[in-house]
Amino acid sequence: MFRNKLKKKLIPVAVLSTMAFGSFIGSFANHKVQAKETNKNEIRNVIFLIGDGMGVSYTTAYRYLKDNPKTNVVEQTEFDHYLVGQQMTYPEDPKQNITDSAAAATAMSAGVKTYNAAIGVDNDGSSVKTVLEAAKEKGKATGLVATSEITHATPASYGAHDVSRKNMNAIADDYYDELIKGGHKIDVMLGGGLSNFVREDRDLTKQFKKDGYSYVTNKNQMLNDKNNKMLGLFAPGGMPKMIDRDDSMPSLNDMTNTAINKLSRDKDGFFLMVEGSQIDWAGHDNDIVAAMSEMEDFEKAFKAAIAFAKKDKHTLVVATADHSTGGYSIGAKGDYNWYGAPIAAAKRTPDFMAEQISKGAEVEKTLKSNINLELKPEEIQSVKKAAESKNMVEIDNAIEAIFDNRSVTGWTTGGHTGEDVNVYAYGPGSQLFAGKIDNTDQAKNIFRILKNGK
Amino acid sequence: MFRNKLKKKLIPVAVLSTMAFGSFIGSFANHKVQAKETNKNEIRNVIFLIGDGMGVSYTTAYRYLKDNPKTNVVEQTEFDHYLVGQQMTYPEDPKQNITDSAAAATAMSAGVKTYNAAIGVDNDGSSVKTVLEAAKEKGKATGLVATSEITHATPASYGAHDVSRKNMNAIADDYYDELIKGGHKIDVMLGGGLSNFVREDRDLTKQFKKDGYSYVTNKNQMLNDKNNKMLGLFAPGGMPKMIDRDDSMPSLNDMTNTAINKLSRDKDGFFLMVEGSQIDWAGHDNDIVAAMSEMEDFEKAFKAAIAFAKKDKHTLVVATADHSTGGYSIGAKGDYNWYGAPIAAAKRTPDFMAEQISKGAEVEKTLKSNINLELKPEEIQSVKKAAESKNMVEIDNAIEAIFDNRSVTGWTTGGHTGEDVNVYAYGPGSQLFAGKIDNTDQAKNIFRILKNGK
Repeated sequence: MFRNKLKKKLIPVAVLSTMAFGSFIGSFANHKVQAKETNKNEIRNVIFLIGDGMGVSYTTAYRYLKDNPKTNVVEQTEFDHYLVGQQMTYPEDPKQNITDSAAAATAMSAGVKTYNAAIGVDNDGSSVKTVLEAAKEKGKATGLVATSEITHATPASYGAHDVSRKNMNAIADDYYDELIKGGHKIDVMLGGGLSNFVREDRDLTKQFKKDGYSYVTNKNQMLNDKNNKMLGLFAPGGMPKMIDRDDSMPSLNDMTNTAINKLSRDKDGFFLMVEGSQIDWAGHDNDIVAAMSEMEDFEKAFKAAIAFAKKDKHTLVVATADHSTGGYSIGAKGDYNWYGAPIAAAKRTPDFMAEQISKGAEVEKTLKSNINLELKPEEIQSVKKAAESKNMVEIDNAIEAIFDNRSVTGWTTGGHTGEDVNVYAYGPGSQLFAGKIDNTDQAKNIFRILKNGK
Repeated sequence: MFRNKLKKKLIPVAVLSTMAFGSFIGSFANHKVQAKETNKNEIRNVIFLIGDGMGVSYTTAYRYLKDNPKTNVVEQTEFDHYLVGQQMTYPEDPKQNITDSAAAATAMSAGVKTYNAAIGVDNDGSSVKTVLEAAKEKGKATGLVATSEITHATPASYGAHDVSRKNMNAIADDYYDELIKGGHKIDVMLGGGLSNFVREDRDLTKQFKKDGYSYVTNKNQMLNDKNNKMLGLFAPGGMPKMIDRDDSMPSLNDMTNTAINKLSRDKDGFFLMVEGSQIDWAGHDNDIVAAMSEMEDFEKAFKAAIAFAKKDKHTLVVATADHSTGGYSIGAKGDYNWYGAPIAAAKRTPDFMAEQISKGAEVEKTLKSNINLELKPEEIQSVKKAAESKNMVEIDNAIEAIFDNRSVTGWTTGGHTGEDVNVYAYGPGSQLFAGKIDNTDQAKNIFRILKNGK
């Protein structure tokens, strides 16, 4: 239809007018001047955000998803405004050359390449100092925020030391037991993982409370608390995905704002690590609905960090990923399209629906009440067939396949992939993170900033 | 083995020594100062390089491939030193939101989003001026270099105007017929596509020769020619992949150096577009051996451009991709490894071997003489089975599967994917290309440089 009306209208090349760039160089120059002025400021605070598994396909797909179809451009995301480069993610593991989250987080927290599964330890299993610990030594306030267990690989690599990421109870113990200058090293901990703190052998929540921490387990408690020190545990394990959460649960944005609010009361400044933990979990599950849910949660947290930094003017914000996950591709099977609308139509994740169905909920009713799409009979039938197995994974896969087909999403693995990931930075010191850097440079830069700074 | 010796050696956090960063900030500052001084220079020449289909997975995998296993770091590629950001690639097509090479190249050549298949025309089919044409209007020398037909979508979008990329004969005609200030608009054309120039209805090689161009068809002729204007056509269609070429054929590096050598004689400066055309073709074929062959060819051409720019000091070099291809992933099927060695072991592409086998060459002998690996009986058997079909595509797929499995390579599509691609830049003006830009910004920046420059 469109193509038919195309005609080759030959206009002599010499008379074609050039494009209008009135304010182009001017506005560019202004931007650079502003950036320069900000960059001279003393760096008091560092907010480091990690989108776990957030490869380039994820940040681009999220832009496709959020596109306003009424305009003839694709609007940029919050991340796009702050792209400064990329980092290499490879680990130093004797058996694997694609990183896991532990080795990557240890590289970013301590500046040391190590083996997959290592939590704040090097290849000999020796503890290595992290930027969070160095910040605490300088008298700064410190915080960890995640939607996984707060003892999961990424936050753990900032606040603990263990030969294996699997030892989440021991990691929770580290948070309490490893003291710096006689005090606990992390002032604000917000995330999932209650079962690693409240155990038969030990109840760390009581111990933290005894030492002056507020202990909260829901959003209202968290928002209404005035204490500077807080342990917030909002789920026994990982928190639900953003679109599966109920109102009693904080978003990553809520937790980030709470952490910034408390930590910024410290006149010596603060270090805060925020993880969008479950972009990766969605990638492992090859679940594009969950992945985009977690991208949105993470973008809002990043926006909160940027908003604080813009006001504060002494805060460096860095956001990056540890690796990509799932071999996720925008487009698949020869189709030159990727559609965000079918994904935006999901009110819950396939996991959520699959669990309801596996517990006996009627297939068609469950799908129709949770997906705002005109489902085809064969799509409903495919889930009904999977439901006969009573196997939640099979049901989940059948629902995910609907979204993969509708959105034209491709996957190659249930694991990680090795491509470089983007680095976003804003504020004084952000130029240190520009270009192609190594994941160990993240820590090296922050150590240097801490050493030279206030 | 390695893991067994790991022990958790707890070292008190407070006594852990900080890392040594002696010259870190210092060397960074020096680098910035140098960059700044270069950036003030007048821009006389622009070399724009396009790795067709060269998504982030490709540039990262190429680094894995080239890693020196004797060191404990992964060495950076030539590209890595010049990363400045990324570009968005989406087209403005009524039916597809993932770009093809024509729409992407028109965006980069003319600053206009258009439909897939459009060659230097906008969505109404009207011709739009390209940066090559604007450079020629300014009296600069101009060149196009590619390993595809020189009339293929990417180079065509710089030097021609057509409603469809398929009209490669008409595109060759444009190169001759569309005059700027009474002269031909492209001074140096090097690549494949002889059959589009020498046709029953017209022989453009004779016409170009009559107008003062040298016409060459092999490497020696090209290297020994002294003329400033040259048409070099080295294959009837696309040129063979780098590892399949014989010595009579120039590499992309040879062609790039020849073009730079001729164009740089013009005192008014030059614009040169160089395409590593077949990274994309390899991606469409899901052929990781061919993809890495073409990455190497392209990296060498990029290196040549950088070497010239460093000496010249008035040359802007930009390298990027138009999109990614194949949904290629580093790692697949749950494996946290990607191996370059099996790919480096290939002396020829699977296509080359499949063609020999389909013409009657013995399977085992062909594989063993072209692959420097100890092949397993089942690998040889899989190709023998495919060979029974006499179908070259089936044989090709069977050989590719060996390399995919050995290297742990994943693919999701025979088409393109939509993720952002990297932008590399060096020289005066390079800062204009930093951050997250749109593919149309490539042309907008170069138009601005041409307008303001000498």
